[in-house]
Amino acid sequence: MSSDPISTNLISVEEEQNMMPEDGVRCPELLTAVGDLHGGVTVDMKKPMDSKVFSSRLRASLSLWRQQGKRGVWIKLPIELANLVKPAVQEGFRYHHAEPDYLMLVYWIPETADVLPANASHRVGVGAFVMNNKREVLVVQENNGALKGTGVWKLPTGTIEEGEDICAAAVREVKEETGIDTEFVEVLAFRQSHRSFFRKSDLFFVCMLRPRNFDIQKQDSEIAAAQWMPAEDYAAQPYVLKHQMFNYICQICLTKSEKDYAGFSPMPVTTGSGKESHLYFNSRYCDPSNGHH
Amino acid sequence: MSSDPISTNLISVEEEQNMMPEDGVRCPELLTAVGDLHGGVTVDMKKPMDSKVFSSRLRASLSLWRQQGKRGVWIKLPIELANLVKPAVQEGFRYHHAEPDYLMLVYWIPETADVLPANASHRVGVGAFVMNNKREVLVVQENNGALKGTGVWKLPTGTIEEGEDICAAAVREVKEETGIDTEFVEVLAFRQSHRSFFRKSDLFFVCMLRPRNFDIQKQDSEIAAAQWMPAEDYAAQPYVLKHQMFNYICQICLTKSEKDYAGFSPMPVTTGSGKESHLYFNSRYCDPSNGHH
Repeated sequence: MSSDPISTNLISVEEEQNMMPEDGVRCPELLTAVGDLHGGVTVDMKKPMDSKVFSSRLRASLSLWRQQGKRGVWIKLPIELANLVKPAVQEGFRYHHAEPDYLMLVYWIPETADVLPANASHRVGVGAFVMNNKREVLVVQENNGALKGTGVWKLPTGTIEEGEDICAAAVREVKEETGIDTEFVEVLAFRQSHRSFFRKSDLFFVCMLRPRNFDIQKQDSEIAAAQWMPAEDYAAQPYVLKHQMFNYICQICLTKSEKDYAGFSPMPVTTGSGKESHLYFNSRYCDPSNGHH
Repeated sequence: MSSDPISTNLISVEEEQNMMPEDGVRCPELLTAVGDLHGGVTVDMKKPMDSKVFSSRLRASLSLWRQQGKRGVWIKLPIELANLVKPAVQEGFRYHHAEPDYLMLVYWIPETADVLPANASHRVGVGAFVMNNKREVLVVQENNGALKGTGVWKLPTGTIEEGEDICAAAVREVKEETGIDTEFVEVLAFRQSHRSFFRKSDLFFVCMLRPRNFDIQKQDSEIAAAQWMPAEDYAAQPYVLKHQMFNYICQICLTKSEKDYAGFSPMPVTTGSGKESHLYFNSRYCDPSNGHH
């Protein structure tokens, strides 16, 4: 596509006249697109296409969308159609995001600054503080990672899966790694750090959970060892004492177990668009479901 | 690459013998790669290369890495080298993530399940609750988005930029949208929702900030109007009353302004790997920097 909007417009007027008969029947030279609520269109490519054919249809479609005043143009290419990445980039598209099985490209038609939504920027992890009534903490040693082979006992941790709630992820990780069933209590704290993976940031939620059983069934693939450990022994490990982050998190957990500490508890809520979400807040002083006044 | 590991290994032994002379000089047929701490290698392609040349070098390199027992292989392709996406996929690579200017592909060599880090899964937004000493809330009407033209007054909101702290983003958004300088106080609550954008989830942090000046200088491009609004009028808007999420957030903010509500405040900490991060927690009951006991 020409970067000169005037010449592109001149071409597109001619092409549109040739391609769009009065009766509105779709011509085969255009790509199939679905409009969105933001004045844009999405092309969800599903079937194989020759890259030259794709180029020509994309050029014709862009001319039409430009005429129609469309804004953001999205092209979703399954990894099987990797042959179409280069032609899309040649027409001026940039990458937006990718998952293992597809690449999303985008093109902003207006001459104003783009208001396209940002890509996901954070990975989200959870750590689980689980204590029994003997003041023993559920701890593990991992088969992989930076602490492998060091003998350091740590809280069970893991990464949130696609579409998973923080509270559900904490319960799942404890169950997977140790076989212990738990009930979610609160988020005690969270940490934000940057450049944890390429240019991506990281949010890590420290969660308190209440155990429902106590007989550990450790997972063999990821976990080298698991046990109930006296809280004071856990806190006194040289690695925990030496590393500020671990030390602080440990102290917050122990404060919760001994004293008056209020974290954030989850409440299911409906968003403006009608989706189910969870709102996490300090419920000790505020119960919004009962009204404010 | 053959999916049969035995035949691939046979080929690679021969090739490695031909390609790697005793003196260890790199042969031109291999791609330049840098090792990582997890037993993998990263190829950071910077210069243009013919796709056939790339295919042949990639195949030879993969054989060598397989011989060497390497695990994850990463290829970073700038968008200018979109011609190399298809050949990488043909050799068995999958997408890992993409940013506007590059695509990252990955290949897991071992036959065991891959332990590659997950892609970023969440976008992160902030909303700012700023109140003056007349119990007026700083509110805006936006030029874009779902509430455009509805007359609804809302808290200033925005999306975190790459590598930005939650506390810094809240201060920046208020300054950009209204010209008001603020001091960060606390995270009052946060919301997690899913499928907010394609398959990505969303974390939204409601933050309380203390204003340092009161003369509003509204930003024209994004903001249609901005004002200090009596808290009770803000809370009584039909849109706020009707939508559970807005209503709850409003009540949490007003509880904070009237009563005893403790959110999470940020503390700079150093992680195990020496990076600067922020830990957010309820500092009313716990000051880990003074030690636990």
